[in-house]
Amino acid sequence: MDALTQYLEQNQERFLENLKACLRIPSVSAQPAHKADVRACAEHVAAHLKSIGMPHTEVVDTAGHPVVYAEWLGAPGAPTALLYGHYDVQPPDPLDLWKTPPFEPTLRDGKLFARGACDDKGQVYMHFSAVEAHLQVNGKLPINLKMVIEGEEEVGSGNLATFLKAWKDRLAADVIMVSDTSMLGPDQPSLCYALRGLMYTEVEVTGPTRDLHSGEFGGAVMNPANALATIIHRLKDADGRVTVPGFYDKVRELTELQRTAMRELPFDEAGFIRESGAPMGVGEKGYSTIERITSRPTLDVNGIWGGYIGDGAKTVLPSVATAKISMRLVPDQNPDELFESYAAHVKSLAPAGCTVVVRNHHGGMPFISDPSDPMMQAAYRALERSWTKKPALIREGGSIPVMATFQSVFGKPSILMGFGLHDDQVHAPNEKFSLSSFHGGTRSCAYLYEELARG
Amino acid sequence: MDALTQYLEQNQERFLENLKACLRIPSVSAQPAHKADVRACAEHVAAHLKSIGMPHTEVVDTAGHPVVYAEWLGAPGAPTALLYGHYDVQPPDPLDLWKTPPFEPTLRDGKLFARGACDDKGQVYMHFSAVEAHLQVNGKLPINLKMVIEGEEEVGSGNLATFLKAWKDRLAADVIMVSDTSMLGPDQPSLCYALRGLMYTEVEVTGPTRDLHSGEFGGAVMNPANALATIIHRLKDADGRVTVPGFYDKVRELTELQRTAMRELPFDEAGFIRESGAPMGVGEKGYSTIERITSRPTLDVNGIWGGYIGDGAKTVLPSVATAKISMRLVPDQNPDELFESYAAHVKSLAPAGCTVVVRNHHGGMPFISDPSDPMMQAAYRALERSWTKKPALIREGGSIPVMATFQSVFGKPSILMGFGLHDDQVHAPNEKFSLSSFHGGTRSCAYLYEELARG
Repeated sequence: MDALTQYLEQNQERFLENLKACLRIPSVSAQPAHKADVRACAEHVAAHLKSIGMPHTEVVDTAGHPVVYAEWLGAPGAPTALLYGHYDVQPPDPLDLWKTPPFEPTLRDGKLFARGACDDKGQVYMHFSAVEAHLQVNGKLPINLKMVIEGEEEVGSGNLATFLKAWKDRLAADVIMVSDTSMLGPDQPSLCYALRGLMYTEVEVTGPTRDLHSGEFGGAVMNPANALATIIHRLKDADGRVTVPGFYDKVRELTELQRTAMRELPFDEAGFIRESGAPMGVGEKGYSTIERITSRPTLDVNGIWGGYIGDGAKTVLPSVATAKISMRLVPDQNPDELFESYAAHVKSLAPAGCTVVVRNHHGGMPFISDPSDPMMQAAYRALERSWTKKPALIREGGSIPVMATFQSVFGKPSILMGFGLHDDQVHAPNEKFSLSSFHGGTRSCAYLYEELARG
Repeated sequence: MDALTQYLEQNQERFLENLKACLRIPSVSAQPAHKADVRACAEHVAAHLKSIGMPHTEVVDTAGHPVVYAEWLGAPGAPTALLYGHYDVQPPDPLDLWKTPPFEPTLRDGKLFARGACDDKGQVYMHFSAVEAHLQVNGKLPINLKMVIEGEEEVGSGNLATFLKAWKDRLAADVIMVSDTSMLGPDQPSLCYALRGLMYTEVEVTGPTRDLHSGEFGGAVMNPANALATIIHRLKDADGRVTVPGFYDKVRELTELQRTAMRELPFDEAGFIRESGAPMGVGEKGYSTIERITSRPTLDVNGIWGGYIGDGAKTVLPSVATAKISMRLVPDQNPDELFESYAAHVKSLAPAGCTVVVRNHHGGMPFISDPSDPMMQAAYRALERSWTKKPALIREGGSIPVMATFQSVFGKPSILMGFGLHDDQVHAPNEKFSLSSFHGGTRSCAYLYEELARG
């Protein structure tokens, strides 16, 4: 065993404690009440980076939550990698479903439970640990390294593009590295080359201008909750396809070769559906589960509310009903292009007797890259070394909107090397990160820097 | 002007103060937190009845909220009337839409604003004032009077049938009187001969057993909020008819004569829709607005919720989505007979990949009576005397489930003589009762007792 690998093994417990300290800070970017916590988390991350030997670290203000920037440029002639990650987390709701509190990281059965354990604090701290190991063992990194750890990923990275453009020269790099994706299974290292995009909207339907007595008025005016149900129902057809005109125009259809490659992946479809807790898999006609979640767009209600939702019964005919509705997009769909068509379609689906407002919350471009790029090949080798197993080349269903921004601003290849598992419950109660992922991922990151240096 | 009418005029201000004292008690029967307030209101009503000269008054415990019972039997040979009303009120939510607090009764522009001002405390206190006037002016009432003022009308009168059956002999009467309905307009006295019934349900749809990340799983499993929307959409067809099998089997279709009579009522359709604040009237094809709200069944979502409903965006695929869905029924539909068929239908409408639970909250039979009955004719005369205008014979869209219970337990005619207005916002924020209704109604009640005595 080489000294680097040995150091990584001997310090696993401490690496975990470092991560737990960060997980205790409730950096919920979506909720204004946590604004100060988000900043405190940025300061904490910056202090940690300085403590492991990255003195050129700073907390950079934006119009929203701050960015943590760090750099180590002591490897002249070697490639420069830009690590992107995020320290903000999703809201922990519904709180009552957490077995242990979301911001009190707790170890159970080799898994660390906390909001952000996997998405993305756990995966960012793998890199921090890998950096520490190189600096401690070798006194230096094999590559030049820049880090951008942002605080708005979970709310659409609204201010990151401005930051990237303003800092473009300083951030110049040969490759972008991101660890915010998943593995096909606990022992199946996976290299991701495509992500879905996102269009997140809110649809508000108003019927009467005030809540009415359902006995007095029921039957004579449009109920906005019934109308909203009709709109949502009509947004998909019987085959599970989204009915927005032009929605599929720019979708890259899978080739037969791609479909075959996907079929051959060690993807446990039955296990995946079982993990979801759904009674069965259901989706767009003509596609397999793995195709549906990685390569096909879809539409989901993320939240819906209206009328009386308290105890007991209230015979009210509500004035307003609202739904948060988002669409996952695939290459080359563009949320900015699609929104107008979507909004007009939603309005056209509404029954008579109500008014509809459609808001665009945030969006993100889908992403696709070339698995044969030398940088991707370096990542492939790093994973194979770390896990002693051939990595799977995968596409993912989630969105990292900033990947498209990196692509357009820097025009450099991006490595998506993540270690989440499908049962990590990211964005849900009881989010966790497996220690096997955390430590295997840390080793993979340490090897990745070496492999990138080898070119 | 006779002495009775004069007394009523001279004491209007005090009658109003009596009502306001009762409106200050938040007797919200649906909310467990208000249990003690509901009882306090019963005690308050009983104390008031004793103070106006009805010493035989008591608060009777039930399995739920108490009933106030009172009687005055000093008119041997005269008919006996049983007054039914309720002292409980609807929840005041949403609180932020009230211009003045719901339990601080406030006069503005000749209208008294408070939760329960019209439904039904205001209308119960008309009778209390009329009783006081007779006892003060004449030392007696022209009829024997029994009163049942209950505390569970707004939650389905779950324990009243048991009370009525247990007290059947003591409650024996020649006629039932209820003031909990409306007038066609501020100067149009109205006598109601039919009410709609109610079936109030809750539909809970579960997809995955836990909240999921919509990127990771979106497209591969059924979203319960989307599924709930499909169910709700399919519960009505394109003509606005409810799709539950057998739903219309027992509906008494309107005869041409009845439709003509309804057309000739002084009902301001445009004004009614304007008051609702809806952009236009919408409902079952082939029926007018007044037919839709009085003589046709309908289905409304009263509340819907699921997923993330907080600030900002959360890309969650929810585990559960729920809706409160109620149906207004018309003679001779029976909610007990229809529920099984409804529940089976709801389940059959659900898309694959989710499970559905249908709960029956409470129901009420529709009601219809004979306008030519001598007791109804007495009420007609009382209204005509009080308002110096011919009363309209109307049907109402709301439900007073206990009317059917009175009909089956006592087999006696019922007088529905109410003074609400369509803009009273019962069950909604800013509920009010017009002083013209309160005082004109009080006079009508005082005359009603006289006309009933005349036979």
